[in-house]
Amino acid sequence: MANDDLKALIRTIPDFPKPGIQFRDITTLLLSPAGLAACIERMVAATDGPVDLVAGIEARGFLFAAALAVPLEAGVLLIRKDGKLPGATIAEDYALEYGQDRIAMHADALAPGARVLLVDDLIATGGTARAAIRLLRKAGAVVTQAQFLVDLPDLGGAAALRGDGLRVDALVAFPGH
Amino acid sequence: MANDDLKALIRTIPDFPKPGIQFRDITTLLLSPAGLAACIERMVAATDGPVDLVAGIEARGFLFAAALAVPLEAGVLLIRKDGKLPGATIAEDYALEYGQDRIAMHADALAPGARVLLVDDLIATGGTARAAIRLLRKAGAVVTQAQFLVDLPDLGGAAALRGDGLRVDALVAFPGH
Repeated sequence: MANDDLKALIRTIPDFPKPGIQFRDITTLLLSPAGLAACIERMVAATDGPVDLVAGIEARGFLFAAALAVPLEAGVLLIRKDGKLPGATIAEDYALEYGQDRIAMHADALAPGARVLLVDDLIATGGTARAAIRLLRKAGAVVTQAQFLVDLPDLGGAAALRGDGLRVDALVAFPGH
Repeated sequence: MANDDLKALIRTIPDFPKPGIQFRDITTLLLSPAGLAACIERMVAATDGPVDLVAGIEARGFLFAAALAVPLEAGVLLIRKDGKLPGATIAEDYALEYGQDRIAMHADALAPGARVLLVDDLIATGGTARAAIRLLRKAGAVVTQAQFLVDLPDLGGAAALRGDGLRVDALVAFPGH
């Protein structure tokens, strides 16, 4: 399955969650056994060197985290909305269009120097991904790479991460968002 | 890795999310590459016949849904909290200790007769799982089985599903919850 075929499996829903937003809906790709398998296979192939952990961002990042971790022989680290994890956590704030939000991870989830691949379904402005990377580094991780199924390049998130020296991979891009 | 070793990787956090609850925290198992791999391998082995889709319940069910779907050559169907899915949905209400909540799936996510494996991290009273099964059947699915990493048997959720004729599998159980 070519990347254009993967892209064709992603449905666009106009005006969700609000007027003017073209929502790229990956659920139609996930429903396809061949699309899902190609997606995971390609993300595994794009992984740059061994990793100890795959960090998935709640909630759609969880879909990719365990599916990647098994073939990569890694564990899964959960990055969740604040208040959802039962143990002692560390947290990071990030800006939303209006206001801010906070993500957290268990404070004891990784050993210093652990090699971590960050994964999420989509990168837009990258605010959540940058907060996740700050959080992982605060815990002592070496963030080796960030992978996404979808990049909205005109929103600049992937470019900003690359400008910070991080390797960033995405399987499909929607220019013009 | 024996099932007792899997169980030993699950941490118990007292009094979360409220006093008196012994929270079974699977995040410590997920962090273990061997634990995660054994968990997925065993859930795949326990799967009863071919399935078209693995339905994962938000959010921790997503961790297992795609990791199971790839080796089962199935797609993934998302069951989410109401309001999170961008397309037209169907929904089901279920009772909480106080009040109620609602889960949803895309109305066009499956063809009538599709064979669906339901997966979540844990079954307690089973209210969410029963709502998910009602939802899937309303959409025309044949729910073939429900799988969980953890069963809290004293809360009766798994027994209630089995009483309804469904095959239910869980890798580890914590009697006495």
